[in-house]
Amino acid sequence: MQPLITLLTDFGMADGYAGIMKGVICGIAPSARIVDISHQVAAQDVRGGALVLRSAVPFFPRGSIHVAVVDPGVGSARAPIVIATDAAIFVGPDNGLLAPAVAAQGGPYRCWRIENPPYRRAAVSRTFHGRDVFAPAAAHLAVGARPEDVGPRQETIEPLTLPQSQCSAAGLRGEVIYVDHFGNLISNISADDLKSFATAGLSVSINDVSDVPLVSAYAQGAPSAALAIINSWGLLEIAVRDGNAARHLGASAGTPVTVTRSGS
Amino acid sequence: MQPLITLLTDFGMADGYAGIMKGVICGIAPSARIVDISHQVAAQDVRGGALVLRSAVPFFPRGSIHVAVVDPGVGSARAPIVIATDAAIFVGPDNGLLAPAVAAQGGPYRCWRIENPPYRRAAVSRTFHGRDVFAPAAAHLAVGARPEDVGPRQETIEPLTLPQSQCSAAGLRGEVIYVDHFGNLISNISADDLKSFATAGLSVSINDVSDVPLVSAYAQGAPSAALAIINSWGLLEIAVRDGNAARHLGASAGTPVTVTRSGS
Amino acid sequence: MQPLITLLTDFGMADGYAGIMKGVICGIAPSARIVDISHQVAAQDVRGGALVLRSAVPFFPRGSIHVAVVDPGVGSARAPIVIATDAAIFVGPDNGLLAPAVAAQGGPYRCWRIENPPYRRAAVSRTFHGRDVFAPAAAHLAVGARPEDVGPRQETIEPLTLPQSQCSAAGLRGEVIYVDHFGNLISNISADDLKSFATAGLSVSINDVSDVPLVSAYAQGAPSAALAIINSWGLLEIAVRDGNAARHLGASAGTPVTVTRSGS
Repeated sequence: MQPLITLLTDFGMADGYAGIMKGVICGIAPSARIVDISHQVAAQDVRGGALVLRSAVPFFPRGSIHVAVVDPGVGSARAPIVIATDAAIFVGPDNGLLAPAVAAQGGPYRCWRIENPPYRRAAVSRTFHGRDVFAPAAAHLAVGARPEDVGPRQETIEPLTLPQSQCSAAGLRGEVIYVDHFGNLISNISADDLKSFATAGLSVSINDVSDVPLVSAYAQGAPSAALAIINSWGLLEIAVRDGNAARHLGASAGTPVTVTRSGS
Repeated sequence: MQPLITLLTDFGMADGYAGIMKGVICGIAPSARIVDISHQVAAQDVRGGALVLRSAVPFFPRGSIHVAVVDPGVGSARAPIVIATDAAIFVGPDNGLLAPAVAAQGGPYRCWRIENPPYRRAAVSRTFHGRDVFAPAAAHLAVGARPEDVGPRQETIEPLTLPQSQCSAAGLRGEVIYVDHFGNLISNISADDLKSFATAGLSVSINDVSDVPLVSAYAQGAPSAALAIINSWGLLEIAVRDGNAARHLGASAGTPVTVTRSGS
Repeated sequence: MQPLITLLTDFGMADGYAGIMKGVICGIAPSARIVDISHQVAAQDVRGGALVLRSAVPFFPRGSIHVAVVDPGVGSARAPIVIATDAAIFVGPDNGLLAPAVAAQGGPYRCWRIENPPYRRAAVSRTFHGRDVFAPAAAHLAVGARPEDVGPRQETIEPLTLPQSQCSAAGLRGEVIYVDHFGNLISNISADDLKSFATAGLSVSINDVSDVPLVSAYAQGAPSAALAIINSWGLLEIAVRDGNAARHLGASAGTPVTVTRSGS
């Protein structure tokens, strides 16, 4: 089957950096299919990139090779790694970027550092490992190299600390962890958190807006008013119908979101 | 032949939503070729998306499957549909988005609602039909499903009302219907409208600028001055040579554009 | 082998113009692989596009066909051309855009004007040669046409004048020639220029900031402070660790950059 390589970076689309990674891949693995997940992760935003990667990986075929590069530490001590799970292979810097997607797979993983010369470009720069290390390693994996070929085994990977929601008798307390292209405010309160807390009569608050209604489709919101919804990531999201919630509510990553029982 | 699926959405490129659609397609139709038309339609701008789709479809091979998702009513009563014409297949919400591209094909069409479970993901969210309904349906069509397999027949589709230009003895009166990436102002006055009105001596006006010269190549405009031209969509466009007409003229969608005979 | 066509334009990603080029290519060369280098070159910025193209081409497989369209003179006298070097084929307007990438290949080149009807669309507009001339020509080249088939030979191509750095006993004097997505300021001072000037004890200055440290990895910079580094293009770049140097330093294309010996 045609191997599939996905790319996620903070390189943007203007400067050709992502295109160069594809050029390197095509040279080594001409038969590989390449799919962009995103090249517009905010610059150096490891957490944002990690969340997008985690949300996307489950929808790709088993055996896909996911290359992710949000890498403010490029050229420093952080290791370039390959991680294999039962369902996928990950390639990127060991800075937490890959951790949530790997953890979401739910099973064991194994990790190796990309050190062996055949799996990197002959001259490795200290500024562009996407081109010189990650793309070549992924391409070699796509054409038959095994993860253990790339270098020495490493037992654990750098975790990513995500803010956790808090549940008490009074309510759920979380925060916005990601703002998407539509200005939708994605919180760290999950559908399961909500279910454990109460099954009806919920009241959602953000900034000075309370009683944000919890709906099941965007179109159920009142025009230009805030609504809360379980989104496609399985998380509680605050949106504004046909509008931009981030601007409308003056909210951003870190803004607290609370859920209480109505009338409490 | 390798099936071709095009994608047009307002999902942006940052959050992985378009990538997720591609992951779903690759899982069902590994041999399909996927081409992006746009993921940067303005949020919820059904008309803008419809115009871009209409402009692009004629340039794709016969039999291409065009998936378009600008879908403020996702999860509400609007139906997810498949439309077949003699030359192409369309997949998207029945909210007018597909209508101009279908109409531009000039022949009959048939339409079906996507309701049959094998052609949707097992769990359909109410927030992301691009992933759960449209991508799977398109992918199944790419690997041999027939349009009539997806669900019940529907006789007509939701139309899209586009503002029409008016022709009188005094002149043509239209408006800007789309502003592109360059700031070019595309009007609803067609090359045919112009030809019917007069073949020479035309004077184009927009906002307080009159006598905008009608040229046949951008480079014929005076530096930094407004020009009018029949553009690649076959419509009258106001541009500024090496500049941004929308900013230069303070114009946007809805701004009136008029054409009169010079000296009248 | 599957032919590879790259695309670089200033068309942006919103309006479907790049997608239309791909539709045209797919119709003529269904087996061609298409890779985007960039569609976000600044509007009409021939120099910026030329620099990105030059930086990317060396990383694509031999025989790749590179289509580049930043073309303010579309429809005017400037010729549409095909250039063949030993390692690649280039397709685009003869306005300097292709010249630096061709020159960087270091060997001889041959050039032809795209004039023969079979290699263009039947109706060639004067506004969108990407669709009507460049995409069809590249697609035909991908499926077996020879460069000499497209039209008459042309001896030379339009050069692109890039500002040159100056070396004196006092120091190197250059300027910013490109600002990338991260706000990194890429100068026209090359690694070789630096090596010729001095091998240690260098002091870099930009605007009113002097003694910018020359480091070998971004992570060696002090937080939020300017650093200088030889970047992935092989050029001296001013960056700010985890920040945006263009904003931080109020610099842009044309801003002078100087290198002196420390203490001088």
